[in-house]
Amino acid sequence: MIRLDLELQLEYEILDDAGADFIFNIHAARTGQQFVRHEQLSLSQPLQPQFHTDATATRFMRVHAQPGPLTLSYAATVDIDHHRCDPASLREVPVRELPLDLMPYLYPSRYCQADRLLRLAAREFGGMPPGYSRVVAIQQWVQQRTTFASNTSTASTSALDTLLDQVGVCRDFTHLMIALCRAVNIPCRMATGTDYGADVALGPPDFHAYVEAFLGDRWYIFDASGTGIPLGFMRFGTGRDAADVAFATIFGRVNSLSPLIRVEARSGPGLELPHPVDAAISTSALHDAGVPAGGDVEAARSSAELSAEAY
Amino acid sequence: MIRLDLELQLEYEILDDAGADFIFNIHAARTGQQFVRHEQLSLSQPLQPQFHTDATATRFMRVHAQPGPLTLSYAATVDIDHHRCDPASLREVPVRELPLDLMPYLYPSRYCQADRLLRLAAREFGGMPPGYSRVVAIQQWVQQRTTFASNTSTASTSALDTLLDQVGVCRDFTHLMIALCRAVNIPCRMATGTDYGADVALGPPDFHAYVEAFLGDRWYIFDASGTGIPLGFMRFGTGRDAADVAFATIFGRVNSLSPLIRVEARSGPGLELPHPVDAAISTSALHDAGVPAGGDVEAARSSAELSAEAY
Amino acid sequence: MIRLDLELQLEYEILDDAGADFIFNIHAARTGQQFVRHEQLSLSQPLQPQFHTDATATRFMRVHAQPGPLTLSYAATVDIDHHRCDPASLREVPVRELPLDLMPYLYPSRYCQADRLLRLAAREFGGMPPGYSRVVAIQQWVQQRTTFASNTSTASTSALDTLLDQVGVCRDFTHLMIALCRAVNIPCRMATGTDYGADVALGPPDFHAYVEAFLGDRWYIFDASGTGIPLGFMRFGTGRDAADVAFATIFGRVNSLSPLIRVEARSGPGLELPHPVDAAISTSALHDAGVPAGGDVEAARSSAELSAEAY
Amino acid sequence: MIRLDLELQLEYEILDDAGADFIFNIHAARTGQQFVRHEQLSLSQPLQPQFHTDATATRFMRVHAQPGPLTLSYAATVDIDHHRCDPASLREVPVRELPLDLMPYLYPSRYCQADRLLRLAAREFGGMPPGYSRVVAIQQWVQQRTTFASNTSTASTSALDTLLDQVGVCRDFTHLMIALCRAVNIPCRMATGTDYGADVALGPPDFHAYVEAFLGDRWYIFDASGTGIPLGFMRFGTGRDAADVAFATIFGRVNSLSPLIRVEARSGPGLELPHPVDAAISTSALHDAGVPAGGDVEAARSSAELSAEAY
Repeated sequence: MIRLDLELQLEYEILDDAGADFIFNIHAARTGQQFVRHEQLSLSQPLQPQFHTDATATRFMRVHAQPGPLTLSYAATVDIDHHRCDPASLREVPVRELPLDLMPYLYPSRYCQADRLLRLAAREFGGMPPGYSRVVAIQQWVQQRTTFASNTSTASTSALDTLLDQVGVCRDFTHLMIALCRAVNIPCRMATGTDYGADVALGPPDFHAYVEAFLGDRWYIFDASGTGIPLGFMRFGTGRDAADVAFATIFGRVNSLSPLIRVEARSGPGLELPHPVDAAISTSALHDAGVPAGGDVEAARSSAELSAEAY
Repeated sequence: MIRLDLELQLEYEILDDAGADFIFNIHAARTGQQFVRHEQLSLSQPLQPQFHTDATATRFMRVHAQPGPLTLSYAATVDIDHHRCDPASLREVPVRELPLDLMPYLYPSRYCQADRLLRLAAREFGGMPPGYSRVVAIQQWVQQRTTFASNTSTASTSALDTLLDQVGVCRDFTHLMIALCRAVNIPCRMATGTDYGADVALGPPDFHAYVEAFLGDRWYIFDASGTGIPLGFMRFGTGRDAADVAFATIFGRVNSLSPLIRVEARSGPGLELPHPVDAAISTSALHDAGVPAGGDVEAARSSAELSAEAY
Repeated sequence: MIRLDLELQLEYEILDDAGADFIFNIHAARTGQQFVRHEQLSLSQPLQPQFHTDATATRFMRVHAQPGPLTLSYAATVDIDHHRCDPASLREVPVRELPLDLMPYLYPSRYCQADRLLRLAAREFGGMPPGYSRVVAIQQWVQQRTTFASNTSTASTSALDTLLDQVGVCRDFTHLMIALCRAVNIPCRMATGTDYGADVALGPPDFHAYVEAFLGDRWYIFDASGTGIPLGFMRFGTGRDAADVAFATIFGRVNSLSPLIRVEARSGPGLELPHPVDAAISTSALHDAGVPAGGDVEAARSSAELSAEAY
Repeated sequence: MIRLDLELQLEYEILDDAGADFIFNIHAARTGQQFVRHEQLSLSQPLQPQFHTDATATRFMRVHAQPGPLTLSYAATVDIDHHRCDPASLREVPVRELPLDLMPYLYPSRYCQADRLLRLAAREFGGMPPGYSRVVAIQQWVQQRTTFASNTSTASTSALDTLLDQVGVCRDFTHLMIALCRAVNIPCRMATGTDYGADVALGPPDFHAYVEAFLGDRWYIFDASGTGIPLGFMRFGTGRDAADVAFATIFGRVNSLSPLIRVEARSGPGLELPHPVDAAISTSALHDAGVPAGGDVEAARSSAELSAEAY
């Protein structure tokens, strides 16, 4: 079990007289493997946030802020009891067997244009034995060809740009790896959250974007940029790409200041600190069309979708 | 009430020894306004199709076909009792009031890169009074700048390409109009189906792609390419763009022959033939976070999502 | 006659042990209308620059610099006796009559992909009467659709990007205007140099990029970004786009510091200060396939090329 | 010595009442190594073509054709006495030593956006020993990653598209190889002409596009698509990319019919038939800043340019 304490503080200056709308994706997800023991949110303006949890357990919060400064503070203590298993036991699920609600994770999306990479991916990865090891091979391929450098990409940078320019940040590594996985029919999505435990030379804990690939019967974590410690990732949201799970989507003229992020891993009885592991790990519950696992929004929602059909 | 008889026949030649997987989106949607009185599906191979209906009432069918020829025949009789209202009564829903499950329809998607068009859309449409008339203005802007010509676009052609090249087919008009609507914060999606009633000089009824924009409390139909009769559109599916609702998504080496499509509108007591109307029309039920309308999967799913949050 | 005093100072830090190569395009061009009365170049390292003047009178200087700091100082006093004429008298030259060595200025280039804009340009400008006024209409079209903002584009931003994003700096306005002119068969090129005389609110004199369109029998100046005073432009180089006439093309790892640029217009007998004019103006000599005008490299080179053919 | 007989026939239907303008690049180049023993041109309309030979010996022909059919027939007998040398003897020329008029062949162009590929090329080829063998390595890299397939690209397909899509024709292979060479500072250009001698399974002789890289003191031939016999290439033109040396650039509405192309290699005393060779081969004369080689337009023009500077 991993226990993480998170504190984050986001500061904005709203410039429009009419105020501005924000969609935040900064709450720890509640899944069958990730438990929010405690959380606290405060806003410096007297606002009434609205919440929405989507089918993947991503919690979105909308606020309409008034002109002037806005500070959002969020603190949470989160337990993650990762599902772990032997990578060698994880098979790719053929298209014909894939739960049908997962098909969109094979399709191209705004920043992951898999349709343009079918030949390239087939040439590079088509001959490899399917399974967890093929996803790792794609991850390594991306890492070997991409330089991590801040301020080298923008909000419209896509997987194709990153493949050409060979430079980017975690968001860009993630988009490219997703596009390549989908191009060989491996369902793949973006996860967002925070990291903890990476080499301190790479800087303090920060927001992070990483990859989840569907293998066997659930989503497994991969770190496309290759510098993080996946056991230390706290998951906020998942989506087809950054269009779905930006930390903040802002409507209106707003200045954003640098966020403050603090993450600590607790030690104690039954707790371990994030460290590299060989096991495949997941913060998702079993993806099942039958009986939903208790308390996991993901599985419940999916089973509802699958049973809704009465053709 | 519109009553349409549809017959369609799709023919393929599967080339791979291992067969091929198909995801079809060719069933008439069942919504609060569109009723499938009768439908019949037959496949020339003894296959066991699997079905999935998503949150927007789109029905997907998956089959794993064996090598050799495959013919899919689908026939349906569909009643459409369009919701109609005065366009002048339809307001745009501000971001702060939009049902939260509709936010993804404001975000950029694979073929509708609204994020690149924020300035252009603000300049062209930002000063117009919001409402149905602004969506019509966007539709006309696209039509005036785009030439309809077959075989001018490919599966990877996007809204940006169409904006630059100013040529395309209904899919391309649709993508561009969607991208521009989203860029001024009007939720917008692609609908697919068949058309009926257009000028015969433009050819027989065919597959069609068109636009749905969310105004007031539901999705309204717009024909981006401007040559169809929206009352004659039978809806199959809706999605963020063509990546979500292709008529057929094929995995494997397959030759596709030209589809045969026949649509007839029935006349009789209580029936009218598709014709141009001034009214705003919709085949969707009220999108409501409260009591779901009976039998409308769309509304039911949305309300479930909104009430799932207990922050 | 305009007389301008230019001083510029460029500073670099060469990081590679092997040194770095620079191609500079920072010398005032010597044309039939622009005369370099005096110029002085100094380099802080004891280097032997090499020079090359191309067929358009652009002077390139190459140096191989050693590791460490490099300062280039250039000062010049330049007289510009603009060719001026009534815009109404300037016709577009039909393709069939265009000097054949100018054909490349109709073709697409790295940053000016006219081939993608044929329909758009025909739709917007195809119905206008040809001539100087049509080029002005293209210039205004670009200005109305593009916001001038620093740090919004990169070295790979092209005309298509600017058309979509509607934001950029003088380089981007210039590329877009060039692409649109070529798309309606008006030969067009980029000019680089310095500006003088613009509204001081827009900042001090600086490097500038602007447009030259070929009308009648020579190249005429247009300011795509619309804020400069063309009489105050000192011309360094011309080329098909920024790929040809970057102020500095650098091979090797180098830090570039902000350049210092000072331009003054002299007053005195026979001199006028840069000011807005209605006349069409040019710093190029007559482009003639016959007898070259004395002292104008451009015309001389062109005539040589045209007479070389003895088919 | 190679002796080739070429016959080609191009047929068009001019649709505009005003006629149409054509720029053809279909004449065998006359270089220090390629000699036109005999050539004959006929046009089915009574037109007066105009000719222009550029600095690289490319001959352009312009005609203004009347409405209706136009047939162009060209026949030539051409001797090619290839300059041949040991590949191991050919060095890359450092930027600091490169003849300055060749710098544009290092810069990005419309279809060869080398500026986007600097990191990729450095990673793939930066560590290889410079020389002819590195250019061969780039050629092989392109061939291994690109599938030759007709009708997979359009007039706006660029090197970046080909790198992503991994499919194309000789034009596309050529653009990608050029972009990669330039990205590691090897001057590189496109050559157009005809091929002869390839495996008959690949079809009859046809128009061809291939690569010339500047090594040592002249331009050497490489076949980017890897299926041709370079000794059998007859050179028409060279340029920075296809924007410069299209076989036909057409202004106006014109239907193009399939061209007829016949090439035969003659045998006889002193003649050899095209066959694979290990030697590096060139149809260009020495590129020299000093005394121009007799009869070679290329060298003469270059030396003029270099001596024109009197700073």
